[in-house]
Amino acid sequence: MPVAVFASATDDPAQWLPALREAMPALEVRVWPEIGDPAGIDYAIVWKPPAGMLAALPKLKVIYSLGAGIDAMLRDPTLPADVPLVRMVDLSLSEGMVEYVAEQVLAIHRQARTYRAQQAAGEWLQHDQRLARDTTVGILGLGTLGAAAARALTALNFRVAGWSRTPKAVTGVEGFAGAEQLGAFLARSEILVCLLPLTAETEDILDRRLFAALPRGAWVVNAGRGHHLVDADLIAALDSGHLAGAVLDVFRTEPLPAGHPFWAHPKLVLTPHIAASNNAKYATQRLAEQIARFERGEPMEDVVDRSRGY
Amino acid sequence: MPVAVFASATDDPAQWLPALREAMPALEVRVWPEIGDPAGIDYAIVWKPPAGMLAALPKLKVIYSLGAGIDAMLRDPTLPADVPLVRMVDLSLSEGMVEYVAEQVLAIHRQARTYRAQQAAGEWLQHDQRLARDTTVGILGLGTLGAAAARALTALNFRVAGWSRTPKAVTGVEGFAGAEQLGAFLARSEILVCLLPLTAETEDILDRRLFAALPRGAWVVNAGRGHHLVDADLIAALDSGHLAGAVLDVFRTEPLPAGHPFWAHPKLVLTPHIAASNNAKYATQRLAEQIARFERGEPMEDVVDRSRGY
Repeated sequence: MPVAVFASATDDPAQWLPALREAMPALEVRVWPEIGDPAGIDYAIVWKPPAGMLAALPKLKVIYSLGAGIDAMLRDPTLPADVPLVRMVDLSLSEGMVEYVAEQVLAIHRQARTYRAQQAAGEWLQHDQRLARDTTVGILGLGTLGAAAARALTALNFRVAGWSRTPKAVTGVEGFAGAEQLGAFLARSEILVCLLPLTAETEDILDRRLFAALPRGAWVVNAGRGHHLVDADLIAALDSGHLAGAVLDVFRTEPLPAGHPFWAHPKLVLTPHIAASNNAKYATQRLAEQIARFERGEPMEDVVDRSRGY
Repeated sequence: MPVAVFASATDDPAQWLPALREAMPALEVRVWPEIGDPAGIDYAIVWKPPAGMLAALPKLKVIYSLGAGIDAMLRDPTLPADVPLVRMVDLSLSEGMVEYVAEQVLAIHRQARTYRAQQAAGEWLQHDQRLARDTTVGILGLGTLGAAAARALTALNFRVAGWSRTPKAVTGVEGFAGAEQLGAFLARSEILVCLLPLTAETEDILDRRLFAALPRGAWVVNAGRGHHLVDADLIAALDSGHLAGAVLDVFRTEPLPAGHPFWAHPKLVLTPHIAASNNAKYATQRLAEQIARFERGEPMEDVVDRSRGY
C-alpha cells in the first residue's frame, strides 16, 4: 500500500484526511510529524512544509504541492532536486479565480466605485457607459488560470489580449509573447490583470516602467503574487493620475501590515488574498487523478519545470 | 421615399439623426414637431411621445419604440390600436443588461460588501467562499434580456433557474413556468434577478409573499421596472433579516426622491437606472433591420402583443 505524508502550515488535517481517504482508499496517509519510518513514505502532500522535512524522506517519489504558487518552496535550498514537484491547480482554484477576475473587471468597467459614492451622497447621476465589446482587458500570464479568465471575459463580450513568456493560443484572445511584444500588449490594456507565476523574471514586473506603458486612466488588478508589484511605484502612478485605480488581492507581506499606505489609499480596492484557493473536496479529487497517472506510468500535469520556476 | 418622424422625450435628435441617416440613407427623417404633412409619415420612431401625437398621423404604418419597456406607451389611451408597435431590444441594451446582472450577481456571491467594509476598517479576514457552481441564481423573466443574462451566468458556472409566464427553453437553465411553478422556482433562488416586463400581471410581483418564498439570506436584484417592487415590503424583508440585501436599478419614481428610505438603508445597493440602455449606434442598426423586414413584407421581431402587454 503506498504511503503519503501530509504536512501543511495552513490546512487542517482534520478537514483533509477524510477527503483524502474517500478519494484514495488505497493510500495510507500519515500526518507530519507522526510519519513512522521515513523510508516508507512514497508521496508528500504539502503546503509550506518545514525546512528540511522533504530532504529527510529517502524514498520520496513525488512532491504534490497543495497550492499553485510554488515560489516559496523553490527558495528552500533543502528541496530534493531529483523528485518531481507537482503544482495543484484544481477546479476550485481555477473557477474561483475566474469569478474573482470577472467580478473585479466588471466592477471597474461598470464604474461601481463611482455609483457607490453617489449612493452614499444621495446623488442621482447617470454616466456614459461603454460596452464590454469596446473595452480591452489584458491578461498577464496565460497559464491554466489566465486562459480560464480570458475565456470567461471573452464570453462577457470583452476584447481580451493575453501576454505570456512563450506564445500561447487561446481562442478569441489576441496573443502577445516575450519581452519584445510586452509594450504593444500593454498599450492596449485598459484593464490589466496579473495572473503570472512568481519567478526571478516576473518579480517586480508591475513597476513604474510597466505602468507608464499602459494607457492613461488604466486599472491594474493583481491576483498573482505580492512580489510582482513594486508598492511605491503603484502609489506614484495612482497619485500622478496616470492610473485610475487598482485592485489588489496579494501583498508582499500578508496580512497587509497595519499602517501600510495601501490601506487608506482612495484609489485602491483591497481584498485579503481570497481570489481563489484549493479546497479539500476538489483538491483531493485532482490529487487522486495525478497519483493514478503516476502509478500507471503516465505523465502527470502541472509538473514544475524548476529551470523556469513554475 | 419613406418618411419617419423622430420624437423622444429624452434622446437628443442631434445625436440620433446622423446615425439614422447613415443606417438608412433612403429614409427621410423629420423631427417632431416639424413634421410637415401628417399624412406623409410612414413610421414613428419614438420614446415617451407627446399624448395624441401618434393618433394624429393618419397613414402611420409602424410605431418603433426606442426602448424595450413600452408599459408607459400602452397606458396612453390615444395610442393607435391598429398600428403595429415594435419594442427596441438592440445589442447595447441586451449586452449592457448582461454586464450589469453579471456584475451585481458576482459582487453578491463574492461578498464584495463585506470585504469593502473590512478594507475601510483596516481588517484582514478571509471568509468561506462557495463556488458559483454551488450557488443558484433565479431569473424572473426569460425574454431576450433574461435569456441572455441566464446564458452569461451559466458561462460563469452558476446554477441558473428561470421563470417565465409560458414555458421557455434556455440551454443549461432549469425552466419553470406559470403561477403553479413560481413557488418551486423561488425556493431555490439564492439570488433572484427580476427582468420581467411590466404588465398588469407583474406589477407589484416583488412583494412580501414572494420574498417569504425565497430562502432565508437570499438577495434580490431588480433590473426590471420600479413598479415590480413593493418598496415597504422590501424594507420589511431586509429589516427582519429574511433577505440579506438587494440591488435596485429602477424605482417607482425616478430620480429616486430625496428622503426615500432606500437611500440610507445599509442593506441596499442603488444604481440610477444605468443597467442598460439603447444607444444611437446599435439602436439605429436594429431599426434599419426591422424597417427592411417590414418593407420586404417579412415579419418583424419584438412586435408588442397588446393583450399580454409586451
